Amino acid sequence: MPLNPAPSLDRTALPVPRDGIAGAAPYGAPQLEVAHALNVNENPYGPSPELAAAIGRAAADAAVGLNRYPDREALDLRRELGEYLAAESGVPAPPAEAVWAANGSNEVMHQLLLAYGGPGRTALGFTPHYSMYPEYARDTYTAWVTAERGPAPEFALTVEAVTAAIEEHRPSIVVLTSPNNPTGTALDLDVARAAARALEPTRGLLVVDEAYGEFRRDGVPSALTLLPEHANLVVSRTMSKAFALAGARLGYLVADPAIVDTVRVVRLPYHLSAVTQAVARTALAHREELLGRVALLRSERDALAAHLTARGHDVAPSDANFVLFRSFTDRDAVFQGLLDRGVLIRAVGPAGWLRVSVGTPEDNAAFRTALEEADPR
Amino acid sequence: MPLNPAPSLDRTALPVPRDGIAGAAPYGAPQLEVAHALNVNENPYGPSPELAAAIGRAAADAAVGLNRYPDREALDLRRELGEYLAAESGVPAPPAEAVWAANGSNEVMHQLLLAYGGPGRTALGFTPHYSMYPEYARDTYTAWVTAERGPAPEFALTVEAVTAAIEEHRPSIVVLTSPNNPTGTALDLDVARAAARALEPTRGLLVVDEAYGEFRRDGVPSALTLLPEHANLVVSRTMSKAFALAGARLGYLVADPAIVDTVRVVRLPYHLSAVTQAVARTALAHREELLGRVALLRSERDALAAHLTARGHDVAPSDANFVLFRSFTDRDAVFQGLLDRGVLIRAVGPAGWLRVSVGTPEDNAAFRTALEEADPR
Repeated sequence: MPLNPAPSLDRTALPVPRDGIAGAAPYGAPQLEVAHALNVNENPYGPSPELAAAIGRAAADAAVGLNRYPDREALDLRRELGEYLAAESGVPAPPAEAVWAANGSNEVMHQLLLAYGGPGRTALGFTPHYSMYPEYARDTYTAWVTAERGPAPEFALTVEAVTAAIEEHRPSIVVLTSPNNPTGTALDLDVARAAARALEPTRGLLVVDEAYGEFRRDGVPSALTLLPEHANLVVSRTMSKAFALAGARLGYLVADPAIVDTVRVVRLPYHLSAVTQAVARTALAHREELLGRVALLRSERDALAAHLTARGHDVAPSDANFVLFRSFTDRDAVFQGLLDRGVLIRAVGPAGWLRVSVGTPEDNAAFRTALEEADPR
Repeated sequence: MPLNPAPSLDRTALPVPRDGIAGAAPYGAPQLEVAHALNVNENPYGPSPELAAAIGRAAADAAVGLNRYPDREALDLRRELGEYLAAESGVPAPPAEAVWAANGSNEVMHQLLLAYGGPGRTALGFTPHYSMYPEYARDTYTAWVTAERGPAPEFALTVEAVTAAIEEHRPSIVVLTSPNNPTGTALDLDVARAAARALEPTRGLLVVDEAYGEFRRDGVPSALTLLPEHANLVVSRTMSKAFALAGARLGYLVADPAIVDTVRVVRLPYHLSAVTQAVARTALAHREELLGRVALLRSERDALAAHLTARGHDVAPSDANFVLFRSFTDRDAVFQGLLDRGVLIRAVGPAGWLRVSVGTPEDNAAFRTALEEADPR
């Protein structure tokens, strides 16, 4: 007999959620069992058996002290994340005080909007954008406004468009994404510079979300290189994608220590478990293995984009581990046709477009084969 | 050379946090290296070597799939938490749909206030209370109001006082804590019933925070037993205390599935890592070991309270794993005198009172010895 719901219970006594929440659906792509899951931009390569064992040992070591609260500041992890970024992006290593980590970049973004958004404040993004941004805004009572990215298939942002949108909306927070999800578009750093400058008079915050940063093409710089120039800049990253650690939930940011200290005010104490810290540090120590597949994924990504272009699709140039393309026929029918053949992708972005994550060569071949039938030329 | 702060950076360009955040200090008790840490109500007993190894194996198993996002709903964990509660509290097992889990009861409470608090809404608590409650309210723009618990040393809540406070403040959320932190006071379930009924006309939510519930004395019932009677009741629990798992961050609640579904709207997707889920499930499977020390801690708690009473202190009757007592002299001096002797406790609660966590028999003996010198009779 279930404790709840009690059939006799007076359901009219259920409490009333606040505005904007009642009746809303929780965010989330379907979690389906399929042969080829190419829908949420996961890295298809899990840890090696050696690394999985090392993660287990690190967790066992942490377990001995699990009766105690974790290191609330996670300074060792934050310092090591900074050292990794220095190696990855060719910037001087940010000290631990300039790095912040949380349970996924979801939580990083939520904390930034908790600290810098709120009633009467506005956050500005550019469509098409990551579908969670409006939810962070809703949850923190921040008004979410958008301007459009440039025309397909480039979906580019320009200095003029971004500064005009900032002038118009006077946002407290601007979110630029590089490469952008779902389009894959890299960010021209002149646009980031112009946005940071345009936000200075009103003391606004610029967040450059580089969740997919490690997949960017050769010669594309990271916004990390702009940190010494702009005190109002935050660059966020995640270990979910290139590090193949989506299941471990570790996002982070780099910013002026004053911004990190502000985020510390709104973080929940002990938000990062001792095990999460241990797992992330182990993954960082094994980064050669984990990041070794990034080169393969980039080359598969380029081959996939070339294949789609050769088929005649419109294809957005991608610096990420996914490709956005326009289907020939109704996208929902193409989505379903692919799913019927064991290939799960995502119907997201402008009408008519579909996003496919880059998988293993086998995944990508299955996608190409299925597409021949699901969206014939 | 650190990336940040750049000496040449224009610090006046730093973004401005929202009201209530700028200049505030992050919450948190000091994390000091001491011989006897009796300040944050941790369980002094860590997992056995066998359990630590089992946790490591579970983490290693989870690690193999860490490139994938975790099970967003964590239904297995939620079902097992329900089964545990049935065994612990003698209630029918709530189904997974009536249980919700998050990264510590901090996150559970934050999510409840995100969903049911907000601008124009009020949450009511009773002083002295857990020091994080006002922060959840601040972070979610919920007004935090309080009424006083009854006189020391009982700090009891009465039906009259609680219903009068609800009438006065008409809150959207009432938080009752059982046993209460920092006083250790158990909640008379007639008070919880009266609060739930008083909240019905305005469709308010009653949260009974039972973080320390497993330490309650024989014959003290859990508010879980009230769930079949009240659709507006949430009972929250944590694995941090009795389960000795503070480092793993696992809090949970039981409520009507409609309330759980509302919380799901404001949760960050994939908020519970695959490793956290695996660690918590392993701990639940080993609950005989972990909970085996609860009986010892309860008996040490009673002995500690009796010792303090015999010394002549005012002592709050405790159903928790800590004891609140009034010092003979200046509490800050007593706190420091204890710390000088390697015993870290907490200066919290009404002026003049101190809270000491129940540790191992050795910890508790060290506290008693140090107190002779730090707060002589």
